Amino acid sequence: MDNTAKIATVHRYVEAFEKSDISIIRDMYAPDAVVEDPVGSEPHVGIDAIVAFYEGALAAGAKLELTGEVRCAGNAAAFPFKVIMPGMEIAPIDVFEFNDEGKVQSMKAYWG
Amino acid sequence: MDNTAKIATVHRYVEAFEKSDISIIRDMYAPDAVVEDPVGSEPHVGIDAIVAFYEGALAAGAKLELTGEVRCAGNAAAFPFKVIMPGMEIAPIDVFEFNDEGKVQSMKAYWG
Repeated sequence: MDNTAKIATVHRYVEAFEKSDISIIRDMYAPDAVVEDPVGSEPHVGIDAIVAFYEGALAAGAKLELTGEVRCAGNAAAFPFKVIMPGMEIAPIDVFEFNDEGKVQSMKAYWG
Repeated sequence: MDNTAKIATVHRYVEAFEKSDISIIRDMYAPDAVVEDPVGSEPHVGIDAIVAFYEGALAAGAKLELTGEVRCAGNAAAFPFKVIMPGMEIAPIDVFEFNDEGKVQSMKAYWG
């Protein structure tokens, strides 16, 4: 998977929040993906649990804004961004690991 | 391990390059730590291999500059920074995972 495709996935991720479009989330993750957000919390395992998690975030009106470049290395991409919600703002770094089909297999969010 | 201690380790890491002081590197990593820099390359396993890797970077005159806040989550810290070397600059995101003794057990560097 080349870096252009990894970066495109990150931009689609931002777009999913912008448009509040859960179908983008469902499409970008592998069926057996694992999302740990934040790292140290109980992971969301499998696409249904992941979609339910994001539906909550989209319903809360969360929007994303990249605050630095997307770093690509090996099968992974790491990027810093802001999550802007009514009355709240956090500044995570997310790490996506991709599988051979170009889907996100693992997501870890670093913030706290 | 509290976030203050994790952030202090990141600042000591920057200091190690500033002072070209390999003893800081030796002290902050666990004896059986693993460093993958960049992710996707052959990891440096164990403190002797890690020290040899950093001795190369220090000898090259590399300096570090944080470009955003240190994000702490669970047993980990993630941070964006610049590596400034004569004629070259890269902008990685590093992720440190700490063990129960407060030493860095795993380091992954995302850049490419």
